[in-house]
Amino acid sequence: VFSKDLKHDVSEEIDKANKDILKRGSKKRGAKVVRHKLVKNRLDVEIISDETVRAHDGFIRLKKFLAEQIGRKYKVGIKEAKVDEYKIMFKLDHEVKKKISIPFAESVKIDKRQCVLRLKDLDLKMLMENYVDRMIKLIQEKSIDYGGKAEHWKLIWQSKKKKIAWTRDPSLEMEKANWIIRGKGRGQWFFSIPATQIIQAMVQVVEKELLEALRFKEVIIPKMVTWDTWIKSGHAKGIYPEIYYVATPKTRDPDFWEEICDYFKITREVPIEKIKEKIDGPIGGITYAQCPPFWDSVEKKILAKDSIPLKVFDRSGTSMRYESGGIHGIERVDEFHRIEIIWIDTPEGVEKIRQDLVSRFRYIFDRVLDLEWRMADVTPWFLAQEGKKDGPEGNIGTIDFEGYLPYKGKREGDAWLEFQNVSNNGPKYPEAFSVKGQKDILWSGCSGIGLERWLAVFIAQKGMDPENWPSRFKRIVGKLEKPFKWV
Amino acid sequence: VFSKDLKHDVSEEIDKANKDILKRGSKKRGAKVVRHKLVKNRLDVEIISDETVRAHDGFIRLKKFLAEQIGRKYKVGIKEAKVDEYKIMFKLDHEVKKKISIPFAESVKIDKRQCVLRLKDLDLKMLMENYVDRMIKLIQEKSIDYGGKAEHWKLIWQSKKKKIAWTRDPSLEMEKANWIIRGKGRGQWFFSIPATQIIQAMVQVVEKELLEALRFKEVIIPKMVTWDTWIKSGHAKGIYPEIYYVATPKTRDPDFWEEICDYFKITREVPIEKIKEKIDGPIGGITYAQCPPFWDSVEKKILAKDSIPLKVFDRSGTSMRYESGGIHGIERVDEFHRIEIIWIDTPEGVEKIRQDLVSRFRYIFDRVLDLEWRMADVTPWFLAQEGKKDGPEGNIGTIDFEGYLPYKGKREGDAWLEFQNVSNNGPKYPEAFSVKGQKDILWSGCSGIGLERWLAVFIAQKGMDPENWPSRFKRIVGKLEKPFKWV
Repeated sequence: VFSKDLKHDVSEEIDKANKDILKRGSKKRGAKVVRHKLVKNRLDVEIISDETVRAHDGFIRLKKFLAEQIGRKYKVGIKEAKVDEYKIMFKLDHEVKKKISIPFAESVKIDKRQCVLRLKDLDLKMLMENYVDRMIKLIQEKSIDYGGKAEHWKLIWQSKKKKIAWTRDPSLEMEKANWIIRGKGRGQWFFSIPATQIIQAMVQVVEKELLEALRFKEVIIPKMVTWDTWIKSGHAKGIYPEIYYVATPKTRDPDFWEEICDYFKITREVPIEKIKEKIDGPIGGITYAQCPPFWDSVEKKILAKDSIPLKVFDRSGTSMRYESGGIHGIERVDEFHRIEIIWIDTPEGVEKIRQDLVSRFRYIFDRVLDLEWRMADVTPWFLAQEGKKDGPEGNIGTIDFEGYLPYKGKREGDAWLEFQNVSNNGPKYPEAFSVKGQKDILWSGCSGIGLERWLAVFIAQKGMDPENWPSRFKRIVGKLEKPFKWV
Repeated sequence: VFSKDLKHDVSEEIDKANKDILKRGSKKRGAKVVRHKLVKNRLDVEIISDETVRAHDGFIRLKKFLAEQIGRKYKVGIKEAKVDEYKIMFKLDHEVKKKISIPFAESVKIDKRQCVLRLKDLDLKMLMENYVDRMIKLIQEKSIDYGGKAEHWKLIWQSKKKKIAWTRDPSLEMEKANWIIRGKGRGQWFFSIPATQIIQAMVQVVEKELLEALRFKEVIIPKMVTWDTWIKSGHAKGIYPEIYYVATPKTRDPDFWEEICDYFKITREVPIEKIKEKIDGPIGGITYAQCPPFWDSVEKKILAKDSIPLKVFDRSGTSMRYESGGIHGIERVDEFHRIEIIWIDTPEGVEKIRQDLVSRFRYIFDRVLDLEWRMADVTPWFLAQEGKKDGPEGNIGTIDFEGYLPYKGKREGDAWLEFQNVSNNGPKYPEAFSVKGQKDILWSGCSGIGLERWLAVFIAQKGMDPENWPSRFKRIVGKLEKPFKWV
């Protein structure tokens, strides 16, 4: 739609565009205006294209070209530009039987591997921000039917069978003994004195035998994560079902909140629905993978040469995940404590550090805690958290450490609990947060030590009586304190 | 309203009630039905009372009495009972000039100290759960005009003036040196290697010189707090303007969340409004005062004699407060780290432990950190967090520890930063969470060590060059590590 009626035909300009800018960069046919019609100040065009110059790119190019050409000649501008209909035909990578629907699409029709995507009323934002390509990518993604397929899992190492102290459920037994007490929230626990003492002894072991030995330095990473961070880390693609969301007051003004306080003081009930109207967000959530907010601290930076390798760890607070319900004791909790280890180096350096970590962990599990455990190559965590199930690619991948839970019976299935992982994340995080080296290409790695799960595996195998614990760890724990008790 | 029409007058029963149950327990006149009218199955009554038997209590007593008396005689029940109008006249403790309004009230009219509260259409729940008394209490509370009045504050001790290393803003200087890096969230910081090293050295000092010396044992307290806990702790009366609220997914079902994931994948924007429809709550918030969720672990318990005194501490995660905006660096942050110390004992024991703590803190600040600081009696924190401004009552109260910030100039006003407190909370928490001793009455105390504020005060007074630090603390910190840097 032009700013005023055009007195002259625009066929000449359209021909020019067809021969030049609509083909530019294409080795095939590119885009072409196959029909156009001018009525007063309104020009309708129909564009057909192949994949080398996409129709919406062609449309934007044409708009710019006409604005210059006609603007100069007739002193008119383009007042509005929109697409009434967009029909996209493409081949899927996989044959699809189920129905696929996606936001913004009028219809998605699939016949075996042939897909026809129809869109209506597209504004410039949708065209220029390339919604169209992302919609095609999304349909391709949905065409992969993981169905019953499990995530990638391949055993790479297994310890010897170890002497098992008992076959009881560690959470049940610790709860009976007041070592742990159920919290008010879902999957939340209070760890009383002896349970905390054992966890802190494990932290000491990790500090001495791993973090100090490999020269990792402590930092404090924020624990409330904003969308901005999860958009970059890729978590915004898929973790919504598992987030503990965080929202903030619209204001700190006491007058604004007086009616809520008054309502509570009269009824002794918190008026949830009224509060909803007075808060903003959710602005993000409680940290989930622990390392993404670290990357905010180096975002868009060129790291100094003598800061590489960068080796840090954080143990400054809780992570949360809305886990599946049911009774899992401390083996699967919503609120949990993790030492997160992060390193940045050259691709070779990252892999070397990963191997160093694996060998230190082996030392700890074999020599200090005397656990029965195994390692498996699994779907890299950052793919899994985006809903994918692929395996490792070269060195890029995640190793899960699994401990045996004797109370679950035979050494199979869920009798093995993941209690630890180590990942080479490849270039993903430096790319996502635009972090560069002065000369070198940078990769990164991370490793999460789940303290509740270490405790669960240890007590499941070794029991609650220190007499049955490996002597070295027993020394580190010291005299086991009593929990407080009630009558 | 009776279940069927009454054929007989009820004057006799009303007289009986006036003489007996409506006066029972009263040393004054009690309540009295001054007028009644029966039409078919509907009995209207008017009750006048003094404060010894409140009119709504009288109404409930009368309902029960008539149900028995008339039910027996005529075989009818009471189908419905409600109050159309309730007029309450009472004297305020304070003269009030401003207008007062409260939820559920038709009107609140105040003439100097005389108050007339009118209510309409009260259902049985409102009468039986005693909304009425709470409304009177709320009006009394609002009649206290704190106005410009500050919270209670009284200096009780002040250290000598100390040698000041510099007069710079610690946050600005640490930020310039990459020791701390601003987080993505409001009032949120990343602490890089040297800042964390100093904080951890402070934690070590607290562990050795205070927690171990006084035999406090570590526990892990949940950090996500549900309403249930804040209702008991009293926080639900007033902290709404400062909560970081937490909400949970309505379900973990991936199909339910697919449209959110798809929307993000196409637009690269997180659809906040759509997410709001898919989450429950807020179910509570991030821990604010740190100790209330401890009390869930002992709720409704009779603590064993040999568990008293109960002395624990927690340093397992972050607290959050929606603080006033503006630039405060690490002196006032939204996300912060605190060692929380909690003790339960007899009233004498609680006070003794508070004094022990104060003397250990004095030792740390004087002998280890060499700080310029002072102590003041302030409004007990649990009153302040309910919006009150009163001072201590006997031993029950809070001592604030304030450190001098030389960069703010003269030793007055906000040049003193509260970085620490110790409280004798009296019987409040054992009563609120129904915790009892086997024989003894139990009181409790708590003390919060704000690590960001310790760091702020220390760097503000001693600077960033370890050469100027007290030698003992310098030894504990060890060789100060470098932060990672960028070019």
